[in-house]
Amino acid sequence: MSQPHAPSPTRPPRFRVPLVLVALALAAPPVRAQDAEGAAVARWVEANRAELVDRLVEFLRIPNVAGDRPAIRRNVDWLVSAMEARGIRTRVLETDSEPMVYGELPAPGARTTLLFYCHYDGQPADPAAWTGHAPWDPVLRDGSLADGAGVIPWPADGGYRDDWRVYGRSASDDKSPIVMLLSALDALRAAGTPPDVNLKFLFEGNEEAGSPDMRSLIAGHGDLLRADLVVMADGPEHGSGRPTLVYGARGIVTTRLIVYGPERPLHSGHFGNWAPNPAMRLAALLASMKDRDGRVLVEGFYDDVAPLSDAERAALRAVPADAPTDYGFAAPEGWAGRLRLEATSLPSLNVRGMGAGWIGPETRTIVPDSAVAEIDLRLVPDIEPGAQVARLRRHVERQGYHLAAGPPTAHERASHPRLARLVDLRDGYPGMRTPMDHPVARRIARGVGRFTGAEPVHVPMLGGSVPAVWFPVEAGTPVLLVPTVNPDNNQHSPNENLRLGHFFDGIVTLAAVMRIGRPSS
Amino acid sequence: MSQPHAPSPTRPPRFRVPLVLVALALAAPPVRAQDAEGAAVARWVEANRAELVDRLVEFLRIPNVAGDRPAIRRNVDWLVSAMEARGIRTRVLETDSEPMVYGELPAPGARTTLLFYCHYDGQPADPAAWTGHAPWDPVLRDGSLADGAGVIPWPADGGYRDDWRVYGRSASDDKSPIVMLLSALDALRAAGTPPDVNLKFLFEGNEEAGSPDMRSLIAGHGDLLRADLVVMADGPEHGSGRPTLVYGARGIVTTRLIVYGPERPLHSGHFGNWAPNPAMRLAALLASMKDRDGRVLVEGFYDDVAPLSDAERAALRAVPADAPTDYGFAAPEGWAGRLRLEATSLPSLNVRGMGAGWIGPETRTIVPDSAVAEIDLRLVPDIEPGAQVARLRRHVERQGYHLAAGPPTAHERASHPRLARLVDLRDGYPGMRTPMDHPVARRIARGVGRFTGAEPVHVPMLGGSVPAVWFPVEAGTPVLLVPTVNPDNNQHSPNENLRLGHFFDGIVTLAAVMRIGRPSS
Repeated sequence: MSQPHAPSPTRPPRFRVPLVLVALALAAPPVRAQDAEGAAVARWVEANRAELVDRLVEFLRIPNVAGDRPAIRRNVDWLVSAMEARGIRTRVLETDSEPMVYGELPAPGARTTLLFYCHYDGQPADPAAWTGHAPWDPVLRDGSLADGAGVIPWPADGGYRDDWRVYGRSASDDKSPIVMLLSALDALRAAGTPPDVNLKFLFEGNEEAGSPDMRSLIAGHGDLLRADLVVMADGPEHGSGRPTLVYGARGIVTTRLIVYGPERPLHSGHFGNWAPNPAMRLAALLASMKDRDGRVLVEGFYDDVAPLSDAERAALRAVPADAPTDYGFAAPEGWAGRLRLEATSLPSLNVRGMGAGWIGPETRTIVPDSAVAEIDLRLVPDIEPGAQVARLRRHVERQGYHLAAGPPTAHERASHPRLARLVDLRDGYPGMRTPMDHPVARRIARGVGRFTGAEPVHVPMLGGSVPAVWFPVEAGTPVLLVPTVNPDNNQHSPNENLRLGHFFDGIVTLAAVMRIGRPSS
Repeated sequence: MSQPHAPSPTRPPRFRVPLVLVALALAAPPVRAQDAEGAAVARWVEANRAELVDRLVEFLRIPNVAGDRPAIRRNVDWLVSAMEARGIRTRVLETDSEPMVYGELPAPGARTTLLFYCHYDGQPADPAAWTGHAPWDPVLRDGSLADGAGVIPWPADGGYRDDWRVYGRSASDDKSPIVMLLSALDALRAAGTPPDVNLKFLFEGNEEAGSPDMRSLIAGHGDLLRADLVVMADGPEHGSGRPTLVYGARGIVTTRLIVYGPERPLHSGHFGNWAPNPAMRLAALLASMKDRDGRVLVEGFYDDVAPLSDAERAALRAVPADAPTDYGFAAPEGWAGRLRLEATSLPSLNVRGMGAGWIGPETRTIVPDSAVAEIDLRLVPDIEPGAQVARLRRHVERQGYHLAAGPPTAHERASHPRLARLVDLRDGYPGMRTPMDHPVARRIARGVGRFTGAEPVHVPMLGGSVPAVWFPVEAGTPVLLVPTVNPDNNQHSPNENLRLGHFFDGIVTLAAVMRIGRPSS
């Protein structure tokens, strides 16, 4: 195996469709020495590529959409069997929907306990939208489909190359991290350096629907989540190819703003500039919410923001930056040169969708009856979701609107010249940050550095929101995200894939996390 | 026949789905005496109801979607035969699409010439959306389907009642006015009072697609349109049930405003409040176009407005008014109590459709890549369509936007922090008004009054736009619209229908228009 994470001419970080945490690695990180333990694990991975891919593909062949009970049960059986074979004390925790698979593996004399969280369910998939194979019939390609790579046979000699990719549902999100964890355990044992911290595992079966069973799990089995730190192995590694540690995530709350006009669409000729136009009114309302530089004008919007620490501020400046032109625009909101992670460390008000009447070929020449803006409010510590929505509600009322509690009645329509509604879509959840100097997090950062020989990218807080992050936080446990898969993995989309170099490297990264028991590490 | 247009308990103007020109007839108009000529025509209509309905239904049975050449030819044959049987010198004018049927009927010694314009093509119809029958297989109902009226047999005794309705494509738009015209001719002759003005007829075959052949017709046969006045027999009568004369219509020009954000939708968590949000930017742009009272702030927008004459101003105040609450809103744009026709006598800027990202169940938590507003600009004399769009274009540029000529290039994306596009959708056309004191129009108004015994509703200008109106104007001929059908006729929709009382009354109204030759009339 080549040096993991060290840039090399044969493994350029070329991602055609970068989705998350993507940037050019403008400044090469300091290359550190991979230590003996890490090198031994890497050698074992190198020697066992065929078996590791076989194991992954076997797991990917089991359909895993929540609600498909027989298939979900086969996933559970596969997990229980794989965990018990490794001496993990395993329990299946039934829930109101899909079971969670829980396991414990104590290390003799260890005083630190880590809980690894992953999910074994996957997004539903439309087979017709996939290229050349069904979502649960994985194939191998000698590169990225986006670059035109074709399907190749599984190699008889097991000679898998780093740039080859496995295509299949959950190849990245989130079955491969489960296989990485189990394989890391095998690798450490084979190298004679077994885990030296107590390990817990929680594999959820209904994450893609927003983890509906996590709250009742905490209520019923809160002790199972008890650990010094939860390690979430999910999501894509930084685009630089360096191992990545993420210390937090923004929260989110969503709402739908509806502005009402006439009770049905009216002919724009016979009624235009007499009947109030809800699209124009919505436009004025949205325009009142932000200034030209993107600063939110809703009163109190930034009041509860917990400032970043100096360490967090320094860390986000050290993350290789991405440029607006990579995404097809000339300048960010705010000031020129503003870093993306600076922007996403603040709460946001985003119009994720907007609609009124019809557009394109369906356009009708009418005054629309209503106009809708779908809004997401991203949250940072210490903003409460309900408080932020209440601020938005007051803002709309201050613009002269009556807010109806439901679809407006004839009486409300006749009484209020400006009529709107804010629909709360689902419970939001707050943002979280684990302090970057949390002692266990620091031990993990050092461990990953010595096992991989690369300086990790430290991301103080994801701009995105991960519902599953919040539940251990609610139970009082800090969380660290250790994402390992390639950014261009087509997560949630057709042609989801895993780059094998990331798979093999991820095993080394996660093995490092299991060897942080020594005080010196 | 009951007194046409005079309100009576058995013929209340109850329209469940008023679409156009709808209002409660709050003030009963002065009931005038129906003169002897009008009464004679009305008696003939009353005595010949069965044959009149038969004639209409025969015509409705011929499918009439432009492009269906064999069916269109059968319509042409039907028209030629019906016109020639009445001594009209008839010509079929071939065009690039569907033929126009033209006819002339001089009156001995007459010095006034009227051209009647109708169209024989109809909107396409989806049979599955119609209730109980196919669009070109007309049925009779003993009332409105909207009130639950069922299909009844065609009466053996010919005893058709005013409130019964014929359902079928083009029952109102626009075949019945053609049958009314031909029947008015029969009625006048039977009553011994034949037309005393020269008549021309032009029946178009491709109006629903925006009259693509009218411009070349004017170029090649402009003389055929030469007349003192064009009478367009199309559209619904005023909701009061009184005969209706419309002296003009607003013009229209449409454009699509696109504001660009990132080149593809981006995750709103990872990119929100860093990537510019085109929905928010579009909102600010639209909000800059109108003040809170609905007045358009685009520079020069009202510069070329030809003021209404005193007569026009008085006439629009005399049209029975409709109330905002009839349409489900509390107050109009502008000031409370503002009349609809006051508002629609000005040029307008209307957002007829708006879209960005996804809304409703499809909502995705993204920063949209673009946001679209479909805009219609209604025009009044003397605003030119191109000039009005140019004003809007300048307004957008003044807000700091670069307007791309097409889909933006990578270079444009990288160069312009604010990037948008205005797409001109099709040639617009200006508004028009025939002066209410035009001598021929005044003679028509007096004639309709004496034939029907009802004071006509005088509408100085429709808020809506009728492409076919513009072409005679372009050829130098003034136009008067004489709409006759019921407002709730479901024009352009499934279950198009014609109320028979409107059909019979319309014959009397149009007969009156053909008897304006006497100086005293």
